[in-house]
Amino acid sequence: MNCAIVFCRILTAGGKRPIMPAMRYETPHIQRLVAYTPGEQPVDAAVIKLNTNENPYPPSPAVLDAIMTTTADQLRRYPSPTAAPLRSAAAALHDLPADQIIATNGGDELLRLAVACFASEGRPIGTVDPSYSLYPVLADTADVPTVTVDLPDDCSLPTDLAAQWNTANVGLGFIVNPHAPSGRLYELDQLRTIAKELKGVLLIDEAYVNFTDTDCLDLIRADSGLDNVLILRSMSKGYGLAGLRLGYGIGPASLISILHKVRDSYNIDVLAQRAGAAALTDQAYARSTWQRVIDERRNLTDALRSRGFAVGESHTNFVLTTPPQEASARSLYESLKARNIFVRWFNHPMLEDKLRISIGTPQQDAALLTAIDELL
Amino acid sequence: MNCAIVFCRILTAGGKRPIMPAMRYETPHIQRLVAYTPGEQPVDAAVIKLNTNENPYPPSPAVLDAIMTTTADQLRRYPSPTAAPLRSAAAALHDLPADQIIATNGGDELLRLAVACFASEGRPIGTVDPSYSLYPVLADTADVPTVTVDLPDDCSLPTDLAAQWNTANVGLGFIVNPHAPSGRLYELDQLRTIAKELKGVLLIDEAYVNFTDTDCLDLIRADSGLDNVLILRSMSKGYGLAGLRLGYGIGPASLISILHKVRDSYNIDVLAQRAGAAALTDQAYARSTWQRVIDERRNLTDALRSRGFAVGESHTNFVLTTPPQEASARSLYESLKARNIFVRWFNHPMLEDKLRISIGTPQQDAALLTAIDELL
Repeated sequence: MNCAIVFCRILTAGGKRPIMPAMRYETPHIQRLVAYTPGEQPVDAAVIKLNTNENPYPPSPAVLDAIMTTTADQLRRYPSPTAAPLRSAAAALHDLPADQIIATNGGDELLRLAVACFASEGRPIGTVDPSYSLYPVLADTADVPTVTVDLPDDCSLPTDLAAQWNTANVGLGFIVNPHAPSGRLYELDQLRTIAKELKGVLLIDEAYVNFTDTDCLDLIRADSGLDNVLILRSMSKGYGLAGLRLGYGIGPASLISILHKVRDSYNIDVLAQRAGAAALTDQAYARSTWQRVIDERRNLTDALRSRGFAVGESHTNFVLTTPPQEASARSLYESLKARNIFVRWFNHPMLEDKLRISIGTPQQDAALLTAIDELL
Repeated sequence: MNCAIVFCRILTAGGKRPIMPAMRYETPHIQRLVAYTPGEQPVDAAVIKLNTNENPYPPSPAVLDAIMTTTADQLRRYPSPTAAPLRSAAAALHDLPADQIIATNGGDELLRLAVACFASEGRPIGTVDPSYSLYPVLADTADVPTVTVDLPDDCSLPTDLAAQWNTANVGLGFIVNPHAPSGRLYELDQLRTIAKELKGVLLIDEAYVNFTDTDCLDLIRADSGLDNVLILRSMSKGYGLAGLRLGYGIGPASLISILHKVRDSYNIDVLAQRAGAAALTDQAYARSTWQRVIDERRNLTDALRSRGFAVGESHTNFVLTTPPQEASARSLYESLKARNIFVRWFNHPMLEDKLRISIGTPQQDAALLTAIDELL
């Protein structure tokens, strides 16, 4: 902004009418910031939407009931500042005290809070590549450096990951497990070793954990011997609530209490608190949707492989697939989109020959396969 | 955290078993941070709650209808990333293009975004005191300095406010108008002059604007000649939606687009988008509640004055009042609380002899006055 002022003064001093460039009020790192690009969210309900990993099944009827029975007076009053109903439900589900849980406005808010608390100019964010592309954007937003470790083609974690991050003095490392966009599952013991070695906080992003049969909760329990692990859970995928913007963090109370200091005072609204608690409590319903997704993942994987697509084994609600050699992933993405079938293509060196396809209903996936058969 | 490590090593080197102090993972400014203390939110519905400035009347029936008619499929899908329905409603209401509006998760999110964009170590936050106590907390959270200008007893703005802020190189100044906690209204021309003089961004917090008959929208219209004013609107007070966590920012598109870069990708859930749009659209209902609050403010002001309380003229949905000399504000606050009537007392040199009382329904205020008569 000072440049702009100087520029005007120089012109004025020269006796000419100054051309007033727009004043820049934002700080330099925000000027440079390239915002995160979310997946396309078409308004047209006729679209077969397999591009942003929503659950293909709606949330539990108990969620709708919790919303419908919210009173006007509950809307009128401030909600519980700490999202007590939701944290109680999560605590009961995971057999943990509520002070080990923080509710967040989508899992993304937890990521942002962790960056605000545990990273700084001298304590960078640690990421791997490829991974969730929001991580480096959050670092840029907070004006914190990012240290990125490239993954090999199979997206396995390097054995010296913690050592590399420690060398760079990483204050907060992000690992998504099961991994996105590969769908691969990392071993608990490997993550435990990384957490033990890492001198900063390890945030394990379990956004997709409901679609596999294991998790990392052992790393935050009192007997873990660790005090530096945070786990992210999302209600968007497993609980069919992407529209509600709800997630939560799990960790030692010492870390959770720090995150609470930094969140907005009333970060979760009363509808989300009630609906989220209902969703977590109705595990039978949620599990039934997870099993349907897992079954259909098997079907879609087999069907794509039979058509010459390479498909890794996925532990998530999507598959990452390489179309047969004669087809370009990007043009297939575009052709499918022209038929109102949205999948995800990433402009990234390791991913540009691949498509990420969310698991749909059997009917949606059949329509996808029919379109692929017609296009290839 | 390095202190902790060094401490252990020294003890180990001395041959004794180290006493392991808890590792500190958070950055130093977060260690120092004292979080904002929100007003008490009692769970007991029988409480007469006049302490956090909620609207005493419920939201429009159209809001409940928008919530009840939200489908399971809308909950399942990601919402509009830009909160298009809400922004359209706000744009129509204020006769502005939608690119001059950003929807936020409560007005508080707008404040946080503005700090992230327009303040930095060398560009402090400008505040006045007394004012909304969240402003300096947000600055501390972002590790940005705060420059505070003390207000005189009548809470008028010093004529050299912009000059004082400019001397300190303020990047973002906060003024709440109508002012809290005094309830006083500042003149548009005075705010225009401050904005013209200020070299940073002026954020005018209009959280209480619905309870007066003027606003500052002229300062952000295309013909204002200003490019540095942001206006905050809250749905919590005027629209009876404190439970929903919804607010929005209004400003030149050049500033609004910067804020959009920094917000979480899907910061407003689908229920809040639909409910908020319905609330803004039903202006007739909202205005009827504002008028009832304004009428009751007159009654409560007169009733308190007749009992020897000093009460300034308020343009908000609360009054700031000094009890008669024989009563201590703090003990009156505590005695009322013991009777399940909550008002606000601030531990602040200029306010410790005062109470802030939200305007309730005539019935609630009558109960308050009865209790005061019994106590004094």
